[in-house]
Amino acid sequence: MTNIRIIEVGPRDGLQHEKTAIPTDAKLALIKRLVEAGLKEIEATSFVSPKWVPQLGDAAELWPQLPAGALYSALVPNARGLERAIEVGVKRIAVFTAASDAFTQKNINMSVDQSIDVFQSVVEEFREKVPDGWVRGYVSTAFECPYAGRIQPQKVVRVCQRLIAIGVDELSIGDTIGVAAPKEVRILTKAIQDVAPVEKIAYHFHDTRGTAIANVDAALEMGITAFDSSAGGLGGCPYAPGAAGNLATEDLLYLLHGLGIETGVNLAKVVEATSFIAGFLGHAPTSKYWQAATARG
Amino acid sequence: MTNIRIIEVGPRDGLQHEKTAIPTDAKLALIKRLVEAGLKEIEATSFVSPKWVPQLGDAAELWPQLPAGALYSALVPNARGLERAIEVGVKRIAVFTAASDAFTQKNINMSVDQSIDVFQSVVEEFREKVPDGWVRGYVSTAFECPYAGRIQPQKVVRVCQRLIAIGVDELSIGDTIGVAAPKEVRILTKAIQDVAPVEKIAYHFHDTRGTAIANVDAALEMGITAFDSSAGGLGGCPYAPGAAGNLATEDLLYLLHGLGIETGVNLAKVVEATSFIAGFLGHAPTSKYWQAATARG
Repeated sequence: MTNIRIIEVGPRDGLQHEKTAIPTDAKLALIKRLVEAGLKEIEATSFVSPKWVPQLGDAAELWPQLPAGALYSALVPNARGLERAIEVGVKRIAVFTAASDAFTQKNINMSVDQSIDVFQSVVEEFREKVPDGWVRGYVSTAFECPYAGRIQPQKVVRVCQRLIAIGVDELSIGDTIGVAAPKEVRILTKAIQDVAPVEKIAYHFHDTRGTAIANVDAALEMGITAFDSSAGGLGGCPYAPGAAGNLATEDLLYLLHGLGIETGVNLAKVVEATSFIAGFLGHAPTSKYWQAATARG
Repeated sequence: MTNIRIIEVGPRDGLQHEKTAIPTDAKLALIKRLVEAGLKEIEATSFVSPKWVPQLGDAAELWPQLPAGALYSALVPNARGLERAIEVGVKRIAVFTAASDAFTQKNINMSVDQSIDVFQSVVEEFREKVPDGWVRGYVSTAFECPYAGRIQPQKVVRVCQRLIAIGVDELSIGDTIGVAAPKEVRILTKAIQDVAPVEKIAYHFHDTRGTAIANVDAALEMGITAFDSSAGGLGGCPYAPGAAGNLATEDLLYLLHGLGIETGVNLAKVVEATSFIAGFLGHAPTSKYWQAATARG
């Protein structure tokens, strides 16, 4: 097992939840360090309205300055976002929905089906204007919704099926509030395979209750080869401030290397990248590996 | 899979590393809360010399006051410790060695073999005086030693073999500095089964690099049914101050419950027990579950 892909989402999904405004130069310096560490796929920003996510309001300014050496993607919420993204040459986009209507209603004021209707025209336009483009579809709250409770696998499968039908190249299945245990990951992975091959399934685990690494291990055993993570665990958990959110890239790498999987990523350099950006935040990174690597003593 | 044993080691292994002196009454109140939460096996203290571990210098005073409702064990380092333990009626003891001579030399000023020679007479005397007693043997640094580096499984197996030969009832295999990945756990578990049945093997994982829960999951799959953990992750990592040490009982319970394994332990009450003792420490517990459960917001 050597072709494991790591999709670094810290600069987008991590930073968007950080309260302290991070200067564009600091974001670029973070991304440069992540690229130098060997990360090959990075979700760099979002072309969401700056009104909603001020932290990523500099997307159009940031994009042309991204350092060479990695494949970059950007989140695109709607037609207006797509337009802004295409203007600066974005070739890889991500669209964001969920397995829970309560969640999408609260977050984007649409039902899940309505959001996929919107994305259908977004993806169509993207394919037309960027024929060599690539699209990933986030399926958030795939295990539990903070508003609607537990989510049945069949609900996730239906959303995946619709996203595959509108032509996404990859699904990113999110444990948004970090509740999943390995058993559920095995069950859900099996269920999703009815509508998408494992090669099109990525997992986006959160470590809120300490299970993310065990879930990665379970997913690897099921043949999953792509995982989202965030340097240092950037982003925290918006639903439990102070708790861990995104699986930390360092913790993911430590597991993969410990399993004998070569990633080509230099773990020590990711720790340095996290330490660099931590200087701009008002709190310590949640990554256990980062904490151990930078421990005093 | 319903008969999973959790050995709560917070009051001994957790507190012994805490710098702030905890009053005996507070230790008893912590233990009472853990028992009320449903924990059935608790390592309550150590009969080590107060000169070495002042935090546990109150062992003889604490022991007779332990609340009913759980099986208690105590660490016993030598003949003098055994004598003190037997005096107050201890029926379950633990002895502590390692898979690395460099580690035992530094910690107890003996080679591994010398330490087992000492324990042989300790166990003999214990069996004579407490015929219905129970003994566990800790095998520390089973994956890596902070002084000697990586440890080969065969070295661990030899130590286990000697401990079984002197009559310990259970082995507790420790990932003392929290480096193991699931693959190594599978390899080591298989190797130890040459000298001990799975029923006699417990794991004592540390979460220093975030792999403890994944390691538990791997061990469960290998048939292991006993795990050490510490409320809140009490104890930290003596080799990387500020980093996580003992696997947190909350994180372990969350995984087990998520796998559909009934433990009879009330997770919310363990969180309360941790919050109680956290008031006496100068730092926040490292348990991810505890952090999520007590998050502001």
